[in-house]
Amino acid sequence: MKYELYYWPGIQGRGEYVRLALEEAGADYTDVARGERGMAAMMKMMEARRGAPPFAPPFLKAGKLVIGQTANILLYLGSRHGLAPKADARRLWVNQLQLTVTDFVAEVHDTHHPIGTSLYYEDQRGPAKQRTEEFWKERAPKYLGYFERLLDSSGGSYLTGRKLTYADLSLFQIVEGLRYAFPKRMKAFERRIPGLVDLHDRVAARPNIKAYLKSDRRIAFNEDGIFRHYKELDL
Amino acid sequence: MKYELYYWPGIQGRGEYVRLALEEAGADYTDVARGERGMAAMMKMMEARRGAPPFAPPFLKAGKLVIGQTANILLYLGSRHGLAPKADARRLWVNQLQLTVTDFVAEVHDTHHPIGTSLYYEDQRGPAKQRTEEFWKERAPKYLGYFERLLDSSGGSYLTGRKLTYADLSLFQIVEGLRYAFPKRMKAFERRIPGLVDLHDRVAARPNIKAYLKSDRRIAFNEDGIFRHYKELDL
Repeated sequence: MKYELYYWPGIQGRGEYVRLALEEAGADYTDVARGERGMAAMMKMMEARRGAPPFAPPFLKAGKLVIGQTANILLYLGSRHGLAPKADARRLWVNQLQLTVTDFVAEVHDTHHPIGTSLYYEDQRGPAKQRTEEFWKERAPKYLGYFERLLDSSGGSYLTGRKLTYADLSLFQIVEGLRYAFPKRMKAFERRIPGLVDLHDRVAARPNIKAYLKSDRRIAFNEDGIFRHYKELDL
Repeated sequence: MKYELYYWPGIQGRGEYVRLALEEAGADYTDVARGERGMAAMMKMMEARRGAPPFAPPFLKAGKLVIGQTANILLYLGSRHGLAPKADARRLWVNQLQLTVTDFVAEVHDTHHPIGTSLYYEDQRGPAKQRTEEFWKERAPKYLGYFERLLDSSGGSYLTGRKLTYADLSLFQIVEGLRYAFPKRMKAFERRIPGLVDLHDRVAARPNIKAYLKSDRRIAFNEDGIFRHYKELDL
């Protein structure tokens, strides 16, 4: 089956967690909104009055099925491409981990947009600085410390043991993103999360991911995405 | 099976979406942290080095299984108690809707805590006012308008048609919560969402929910929860 991924064309954003899963799986897919008339097609699907119109991108078209919400798309792809365990209880566990990644991603986003997404960063600089301080003092250590602890006791190189799941791919992206957005802070912080750094490197070295990262299918980080680099937020 | 629900004892919070599902299902459960030594038991499970320690409450113990993340718990309970469709594609759709509710709940929370959860509301009053404006101007209309549109075209009284799912229970809670937190704003807004108001009333009248809401198992809204009433944020 050829998948269609729908996501904003200029950014990695939340679509990236889906792209990484599709790429690792070697799945056949089109990144629709990056093509001609793609944005129009995407908007049309969101405005549909019938079927299952998604609230927001990313969403995935798989045959007749339209699936929205990043973690939900990964739940679907995970079972079909060996990126999640087969047993129900373990699949729920990976879904739970992905939902914790989702929460963290929202908090990363709010470091530069604590007041609202419809305003520019430049209009919320003060609150952004405060929220970023709070993020690095409280939230990043709490979330990353949690994943580090799980890695430490997983009994393998990956989050749930010896086999890679889509949650590992997402953690790779978290490390990449934090390095881009907060190079100084992250450099100082990485000594506290050796397991996550190792996981990052292990994922980056996987043949399909390695090829993807070098390809033009991988959009570069930029200041329209979730991970944004603003010098004044990086100390 | 007797379930154990673990959640902060003094608030409805995210635990409430799980409580509503358990109550509607007539499931046998204990709200552990509200009992003697319950908080200690909850913290101990979160600090576990083995198994599947949750990142945060709520989590549900179902036999040997420990399941965290609200939407994940509901995904599990939904299949077991007839609160979600049986077909895979439809179950994913309800999960997708619940994840959209999850996103909205986080945005409601951030109206009073835009800078950080470790600070008091009183220390972020200015940004809270700005974020609340943004919330009512952009976000609430977008989310609630989306659900209203789905209800309008569902072909039944519930979000996915003629049968109640856990996502309907969550929308009931959203309407309840917004009425508590923003009585004036919500009163003016409700004319734009007649379908959601009707859904709210329909859920409130279901025998198990009605009995629950009158019982002391239902914690009252308060200013430690997600939906908080601060006069200055309600205009």
